[in-house]
Amino acid sequence: MPYPYLKPLLHHNGSRIVLLIMDGLGGLPLEPGGRTELETALTPNLDQLAMEGCLGQTIPIRPGITPGSGPAHLALFGYDPIENEIGRGVLEAVGVGLAVNQGDVAVRGNFCTLDAGGLITDRRAGRLSTAEAMPAIERLQHIQIPGVELEVRHVKEYRFAVVMRGPGLNPALGDTDPQETGKAPLAVEPSDPEGASAPLAGRAAQLFNQFIQEAHRVLADQPKANGITLRGFATDPGLPTYLDSYGLRAACVAVYPMYKGVSRLVGMDAIEFAGETPADEFAAAARVWEDYDFLFIHIKKTDSMGEDGNFDGKVKVIESVDAALPQLMALRPDVLMVTGDHSTPAKLRSHSWHPVPFLLWAPAAHMQDGQSSFGERYCAAGGLGTFLAQEAMSLALGHALRLNKYGA
Amino acid sequence: MPYPYLKPLLHHNGSRIVLLIMDGLGGLPLEPGGRTELETALTPNLDQLAMEGCLGQTIPIRPGITPGSGPAHLALFGYDPIENEIGRGVLEAVGVGLAVNQGDVAVRGNFCTLDAGGLITDRRAGRLSTAEAMPAIERLQHIQIPGVELEVRHVKEYRFAVVMRGPGLNPALGDTDPQETGKAPLAVEPSDPEGASAPLAGRAAQLFNQFIQEAHRVLADQPKANGITLRGFATDPGLPTYLDSYGLRAACVAVYPMYKGVSRLVGMDAIEFAGETPADEFAAAARVWEDYDFLFIHIKKTDSMGEDGNFDGKVKVIESVDAALPQLMALRPDVLMVTGDHSTPAKLRSHSWHPVPFLLWAPAAHMQDGQSSFGERYCAAGGLGTFLAQEAMSLALGHALRLNKYGA
Repeated sequence: MPYPYLKPLLHHNGSRIVLLIMDGLGGLPLEPGGRTELETALTPNLDQLAMEGCLGQTIPIRPGITPGSGPAHLALFGYDPIENEIGRGVLEAVGVGLAVNQGDVAVRGNFCTLDAGGLITDRRAGRLSTAEAMPAIERLQHIQIPGVELEVRHVKEYRFAVVMRGPGLNPALGDTDPQETGKAPLAVEPSDPEGASAPLAGRAAQLFNQFIQEAHRVLADQPKANGITLRGFATDPGLPTYLDSYGLRAACVAVYPMYKGVSRLVGMDAIEFAGETPADEFAAAARVWEDYDFLFIHIKKTDSMGEDGNFDGKVKVIESVDAALPQLMALRPDVLMVTGDHSTPAKLRSHSWHPVPFLLWAPAAHMQDGQSSFGERYCAAGGLGTFLAQEAMSLALGHALRLNKYGA
Repeated sequence: MPYPYLKPLLHHNGSRIVLLIMDGLGGLPLEPGGRTELETALTPNLDQLAMEGCLGQTIPIRPGITPGSGPAHLALFGYDPIENEIGRGVLEAVGVGLAVNQGDVAVRGNFCTLDAGGLITDRRAGRLSTAEAMPAIERLQHIQIPGVELEVRHVKEYRFAVVMRGPGLNPALGDTDPQETGKAPLAVEPSDPEGASAPLAGRAAQLFNQFIQEAHRVLADQPKANGITLRGFATDPGLPTYLDSYGLRAACVAVYPMYKGVSRLVGMDAIEFAGETPADEFAAAARVWEDYDFLFIHIKKTDSMGEDGNFDGKVKVIESVDAALPQLMALRPDVLMVTGDHSTPAKLRSHSWHPVPFLLWAPAAHMQDGQSSFGERYCAAGGLGTFLAQEAMSLALGHALRLNKYGA
């Protein structure tokens, strides 16, 4: 949960806060002494905000730790990503747009190849391609188990996600992947057979075993994907919502399902809109501006370019956000944070642990730190210092004048 | 123990990490506006690494806390020095090169002066000099107690250390120093007579009381040092090892026993070598380079000079390390950290709480922070920010690409 000292101090003043996340924003120079992606990008609007506002850099999770998108966003939302682990099944499911509510059981699935005796010969079904997987996915989607609702969605290649919905379920279940070939998939069983979760987990186990049995029946004629294993059973962790934690009516403007899903876990509404450019997203923000106190706007392509090792592409995405920014500023937010959930340096072609540039603009009250441009070196020397991403919401609420004095 | 979130993320890639500690590295200017020892030193090699790598500053224990060498090193090794207190007896013993293993009982000893009635007239035996102490030490070293092995070693002036080894011992024992003159030394007794430790502690108490009785017999003719008191009974705290915590085969290259001892407590091998210059130490590192994933190299004299108030001497030691550095860099470490365990400003002639300069060089992935020299002011503005020494190992593992992603 968010820092418990915040809630008693909350003060409602109608101010509006925007958290603009460019996914994987932080970068590295390709050569020593060179510039990062953000330092290379021409960003006159962000630089203007940097001059008027205050800079810093965030540590996404803990020093040295490279985050996945789930925990990295959770941290920026103010929830300790170490204490509040979201089950892998839930992240996989929300990542492909499946709704997971409390009591639902979400799980990650793999297609595997079984021999005539039911033993696994390939744990990833020959690294099945996405095209090859689709017919098998369709068959799974037609499986019905009385008493519960099932939703199956493809993730990538041999991977899929399943959500089971219905009363009386519990996700305290063990994985069915035996982790080696030559063995049969395990049956689903309660992971804590003596615990309080056991009765409902037992019921869920029985239903998932029915699903697996049915899956093996309908997949029997598939050349590679004739079996499945399930891992990471989990449910919505029941995190306190933004409204409850911060008194903020919050919404998410994002193109990709993963980010809508994670924000839904903390009670944000996911705004539907057409298009996928920064300008489209800012237009969506404008449309719902009066209905919310807090908007999380997510830009995906900075991260995608970083993952592809496309330094120039990432520069261009950043520039496109900067170009559209006046549209967002025209809404006159009281607090604007611009940052990333983590670094994705094109040089590394992957997420990384490096501190992430952070810009806080809040004309009512921001300090001046003399930094003149939004970039890694300026942020490292910024007035907000180096801080855990998890502290960002506290800074936002403070700068929104939404926190009363602590103590007399 | 080290941060528990690290272990599940560990990934073995054969990279090599070096932690070069110049003891007491941090300093202060003698006059306001002046330069510190490190800022004064000519360090072209370190400056080059600063330009290529990234700077920051560590808080050794917690803000404002001046550390001893034991906790300061423990922190840099990634173990919380507040949670993982190493008993004073163990630190004293390992400080003079005595091995302390789990189950051994180590304790600090003081010579004292007793009157004819056995009451203490001087708790430090007239601040006995080291030369005066040696004959008394030799007599203690000849004491034998059936059933256990005893090792006694001189520390300094009136102080010594004792380690008792044997089965069935427990260090939950009270001090024998009554803390005032005119009283007899106390008998050794279990500190928790009702606790689970009491039976074995009772046996240890009996054996230590035999040792004291025998000591008083063999010292009876000494003019000043005719009695002893014992304080700080402790055993090896059983810290998880580097191999267990980080998956690193680790070794220590140090001249002084204290540092070998502390590193041995976390499972490092202490490398034997001839000589005591930085060049000798780097040569020893080169000799064992292929055998380890992690090398801790300790330079003592920066601290000794600081303690002596010898500003120029400390500058020269730093310059000698810099001069030898190419020898270390020729080994091509994947990650090099250069820092101190704490500050020892010549101005203060003692350890201090000030943040310590920290340099991280890791060519595969370090960020650029635009700092051009290794010194306190540059480090305070460095891209790594100000962080707990305890976070250094996380940063090292991250930069060594030895940590998998946290969460999806």
